[in-house]
Amino acid sequence: MHNFEFYAPTRVIFGKGTEMRTGELVKEYGGSKVLIHYGGQSAVRSGLLDRVKASLEAAGISYVTLGGVVPNPHLSKVREGIALAKEAGVDFLLAVGGGSVIDSAKAIAYALAEPEYDIWELYAHTRKAKKCLPVAAVLTIAAAGSEMSNSSVITNVETGQKRAYNDNLARPKFAIMNPELTVTLPDYQTQSGCADIMMHTMERYFTNGGNMELTDQLAEGVLRTVIKNAKILHEQPDNYEARAEVMWAGSLAHNDLTGCGNAGGDFATHMLEHEMGGMFDVTHGAGLAAIWSSWARYVYKNCLHRFVRYALNVMQVEPGATDEETALKGIEAMEDFYRSIGMPTNMKELGIAPTEEQILEMAEGCYRAAGGPKGSAKLLQVEDMAAVYRLAR
Amino acid sequence: MHNFEFYAPTRVIFGKGTEMRTGELVKEYGGSKVLIHYGGQSAVRSGLLDRVKASLEAAGISYVTLGGVVPNPHLSKVREGIALAKEAGVDFLLAVGGGSVIDSAKAIAYALAEPEYDIWELYAHTRKAKKCLPVAAVLTIAAAGSEMSNSSVITNVETGQKRAYNDNLARPKFAIMNPELTVTLPDYQTQSGCADIMMHTMERYFTNGGNMELTDQLAEGVLRTVIKNAKILHEQPDNYEARAEVMWAGSLAHNDLTGCGNAGGDFATHMLEHEMGGMFDVTHGAGLAAIWSSWARYVYKNCLHRFVRYALNVMQVEPGATDEETALKGIEAMEDFYRSIGMPTNMKELGIAPTEEQILEMAEGCYRAAGGPKGSAKLLQVEDMAAVYRLAR
Repeated sequence: MHNFEFYAPTRVIFGKGTEMRTGELVKEYGGSKVLIHYGGQSAVRSGLLDRVKASLEAAGISYVTLGGVVPNPHLSKVREGIALAKEAGVDFLLAVGGGSVIDSAKAIAYALAEPEYDIWELYAHTRKAKKCLPVAAVLTIAAAGSEMSNSSVITNVETGQKRAYNDNLARPKFAIMNPELTVTLPDYQTQSGCADIMMHTMERYFTNGGNMELTDQLAEGVLRTVIKNAKILHEQPDNYEARAEVMWAGSLAHNDLTGCGNAGGDFATHMLEHEMGGMFDVTHGAGLAAIWSSWARYVYKNCLHRFVRYALNVMQVEPGATDEETALKGIEAMEDFYRSIGMPTNMKELGIAPTEEQILEMAEGCYRAAGGPKGSAKLLQVEDMAAVYRLAR
Repeated sequence: MHNFEFYAPTRVIFGKGTEMRTGELVKEYGGSKVLIHYGGQSAVRSGLLDRVKASLEAAGISYVTLGGVVPNPHLSKVREGIALAKEAGVDFLLAVGGGSVIDSAKAIAYALAEPEYDIWELYAHTRKAKKCLPVAAVLTIAAAGSEMSNSSVITNVETGQKRAYNDNLARPKFAIMNPELTVTLPDYQTQSGCADIMMHTMERYFTNGGNMELTDQLAEGVLRTVIKNAKILHEQPDNYEARAEVMWAGSLAHNDLTGCGNAGGDFATHMLEHEMGGMFDVTHGAGLAAIWSSWARYVYKNCLHRFVRYALNVMQVEPGATDEETALKGIEAMEDFYRSIGMPTNMKELGIAPTEEQILEMAEGCYRAAGGPKGSAKLLQVEDMAAVYRLAR
């Protein structure tokens, strides 16, 4: 077991109708001029944006708006937000959307707090943030966990780089989570979200070098709950209870609770997917599903005890004749689960077909972004990264 | 499933040697003059207090000290702390101890922030706090969960009242948790702590009117982990890993994580024990163990589905022929567990023998403190409270 820090100060306001409290909460946390940041037109069409605006107006808070954030949010949109917010004198960032919108809002918030620097320096890891404007979220997709996390991921389209910056400064002050807001999502988005949520916990689960029993119990509970409710939502997209289970799981999977006392996490699958996302603009969760089982088959012998535990406690398979067999049954059961909810288990099913040259480029990009070899279940060198990509074709 | 708020902003610093960071952390959170509040002489003898003082001195922070906090901490000690801290110009409360010390520090912190009011008004529920000085903890006993909770409980010896006041204002800024600091605890204290930790989760688990699957999974994981590690510590009190599991479980059991989406919690057992604690000064966790199974047998038919789930998922008994039989097997297994770790399952084993008059007095006190009937598994009237006490004799 390892020493750890746990810090998840975001105040969660969970349940039906909670978006009507947005104005009151922004006021409580000191906001007076808000940038409402959002994605596509669904927030407009559904009336959510109007309800949020009305709530702000009722609390006497003024705002400007900026929509158009795309999945794998773009640095160019961040720069647009910085310019708009500076011009308007914004002192509070309100993300109405999912992880992409929240991540974009975090990037804008960093930039406004330290306007003398270029924002990409943080994501290029040539500088650390010292300040950040307050950020809050009205969540509309259960997936990235950005509503409680210290993390944000921005894509620089010009260079094809998708990079993360993690800092407690940007943890949202509050997160409004109304599961009803996710009911209209297409099934593919819902299930990609479930895959992402599970992966945030699995990245912390498959580690060598020390684990905490309590953390394992919590992680396994999160994973079993998401598996159960993802299946329900594949059949009944408007099931409120299942929406709620998945939404809360999304926050707990990435606020660090499922990693306490463990050896740092693996996160190779996330790094591998980030390069795919940078090159092909795939849906993040689906990209993770497409690469995971290839990663798992490549590394499981190096972390056998964890793959066995996963097979028995999460996928609940019958033990095989050997530990290796049990581990493989767990990986197969996971693939079956992905297929049952319409998620890909390889790149072909994901709809991409990278050339050998592109695979080498992604492997090298992954290695560079990781600052060297990556992983805990197995430490992946650049040739291992390429091998996992090839297995996943 | 119910709407809920979750807010657990305490920064947790967990693991070996972490008490050496106390000074640095107090400084980060703005403290310049600290009241170090502690209990008995063990913190002195073990050298912990000297290490904490050295850490504060190294950070250039001055302090005054006040020891002598007893279990079921006294209002008189709180008043002593208020006078001392006012005199010294204290701006930060550092509790070095367990729940009693942290609770006493919270009470002092409330009083210093609003010196124009008498502190007992909060605990008598005739006033709400508007401010509170910052509080932090160096934890030495895993039990009460006060290091992350909004709760504090103070006993007014003159009136025999033990009363709780809950407010987010008093949630500790940080909590230093080094499991090594709990190794020298007598087994009875360790196990009373385990009983208290489990009860914080069970109070939130046995409810009628809606539950969240994810919350149940987390609660059951916490409970299984404590059961497993309490048994280990009964045999191997110096097992670091087991100490760590129990210590982290203690925080998660009472920071509200195990209640999210559930119907408010039951908390009748806690209320019943508080009256016993006010009258007889018993160890809180042991008092909870002594009353729980009598409460459970009195109420289980009114909340059968939850007792069945508990029996199967936590106590992991084989199902009985009927749900009632399964539920009773779970209660019996819990009693067996308490006995296996040296905890009482009734008042006689606890070492107290209240008269019928005292039982009526406790039941009436409990009813008054609860502001009327109490409980969710079954709503207990004053005669029900007396009946549970009688069953537990």
